[in-house]
Amino acid sequence: MNVVSTICEVRKIIAQQKAQGKTIALVPTMGFLHEGHESLIKRASAENDFVVVSDFVNPTQFGVGEDLESYPRDLERDCACCERAGASLLFNPKPEEMYLPHACSYVSVEGLTQELCGLSRPIHFRGVCTIVSKLFNIVQPNRAYFGQKDAQQLSVIKRMVKDLNFDIKIIGCPIIREADGLAKSSRNTYLSPDERKAALCLSKAIFAGQDMAQRGIRNAQEIVGTMRNIIEAEPLARIDYVKMVDFDTITKITEIEQDKTALCAIAVYIGKTRLIDNFIFRASDN
Amino acid sequence: MNVVSTICEVRKIIAQQKAQGKTIALVPTMGFLHEGHESLIKRASAENDFVVVSDFVNPTQFGVGEDLESYPRDLERDCACCERAGASLLFNPKPEEMYLPHACSYVSVEGLTQELCGLSRPIHFRGVCTIVSKLFNIVQPNRAYFGQKDAQQLSVIKRMVKDLNFDIKIIGCPIIREADGLAKSSRNTYLSPDERKAALCLSKAIFAGQDMAQRGIRNAQEIVGTMRNIIEAEPLARIDYVKMVDFDTITKITEIEQDKTALCAIAVYIGKTRLIDNFIFRASDN
Repeated sequence: MNVVSTICEVRKIIAQQKAQGKTIALVPTMGFLHEGHESLIKRASAENDFVVVSDFVNPTQFGVGEDLESYPRDLERDCACCERAGASLLFNPKPEEMYLPHACSYVSVEGLTQELCGLSRPIHFRGVCTIVSKLFNIVQPNRAYFGQKDAQQLSVIKRMVKDLNFDIKIIGCPIIREADGLAKSSRNTYLSPDERKAALCLSKAIFAGQDMAQRGIRNAQEIVGTMRNIIEAEPLARIDYVKMVDFDTITKITEIEQDKTALCAIAVYIGKTRLIDNFIFRASDN
Repeated sequence: MNVVSTICEVRKIIAQQKAQGKTIALVPTMGFLHEGHESLIKRASAENDFVVVSDFVNPTQFGVGEDLESYPRDLERDCACCERAGASLLFNPKPEEMYLPHACSYVSVEGLTQELCGLSRPIHFRGVCTIVSKLFNIVQPNRAYFGQKDAQQLSVIKRMVKDLNFDIKIIGCPIIREADGLAKSSRNTYLSPDERKAALCLSKAIFAGQDMAQRGIRNAQEIVGTMRNIIEAEPLARIDYVKMVDFDTITKITEIEQDKTALCAIAVYIGKTRLIDNFIFRASDN
């Protein structure tokens, strides 16, 4: 596996691969890789000839007071994970490689970023769409892999790709969890032992909500109410949101409708750490 | 020359050309082609194997009350012009082919769109950047050709390509003028005979300003003042702006500095028709 830090090197290697007719996959990450990322890389490597993993803590998607500085980094461990999972190239640029001094161009998806994380993180998705567009233009992949863990991000990227005519297939991959249910996240590393226990209220709420939907309950308020109660029973937890929205438009729904995809998403502070989790539900599939 | 109206057809034809190792050029236009567009197509066809001309009056770059409905269209004449100039493919999509019903993704260049036309046309450049990004993603050209007539647009597109890492070379081409000096524009067709004569105040002002710069005058206010006087002497003319800015940043300058590129740009209403013109000046070249 190659590890490079410049756009120019990536372009050169990709051009060689494309000249040989190879299919290219991109797995965009912010590094500090866990089994969630590993599952994306494995799937990408099963479905494509050449897998690029980008490892870049993107400053433009962090708001003032968020955890840009403290976000965990470990390139050596990331390399081992990528190698193990079958990546071909790890792209680990410095911020100054990705952003020119006078950079002022942005990609934004307006409709889908007014709810959920878009509310509490107003510039977040503009930063995500901008860096992902840049990576798409640098790597020019056939397929790009995103975790369902960041469900709103997945929906936003799918919309962006359709709207801006990127010739790239977006593949959403399931949430990977710890044995006790907690969704894997690089931010779990912030949790103290007590907080780690408290954080289980997120997955407990998700499982309860999912179970209700599977048992045929269609009323969003009923499901969300039960989930809120589970989280509010945990003294260390503070809810940012618990919401049921349409997955394709990220607008609030009151009922889970037949043949539409519902996204039930939560964001909860455990101490100072903000964690997210979700389930996606299609009534017709169940 | 092929004429197609769907994205799918364009992608298919381009893929065939790329498979044969051909270089691809894109000339984005809003149609009603004149000798200005023709010069872009000719240059593109001299420098590339396969030239795509897009012919699309893009609704998202027109503000409320602007001339979207009345903008002149003539596909038959455009075909003849493209053929004559050496285009390989004319892409003439309908608005519903380019914009899905729930499209909500935009590309914007913030820094360079606060001055000049960005002031009087607040959503214009977001519309331009979005449609150009879409065309870039559909055609995936090696080179794209833009007229210097729309100088701010040229600067904005160059910035966008750098910032978002499009792997495309942007080529700016000189302004083409009528025999009497008026810059060629599809909007010249709106002018009555009297207005057509009055419109000459734009090129007269541009030539006078350019002449002053070439004679060594570096003070922006002095040049702009002379140009304003020429335009204000014309009773049918109403100035939107006459400004000297840095070409790369589109910020106002007071002096033409050595080794920097100055853009002197004007927008003038002749009756109801808004016309633009400009000159670009590098002190080191003169």
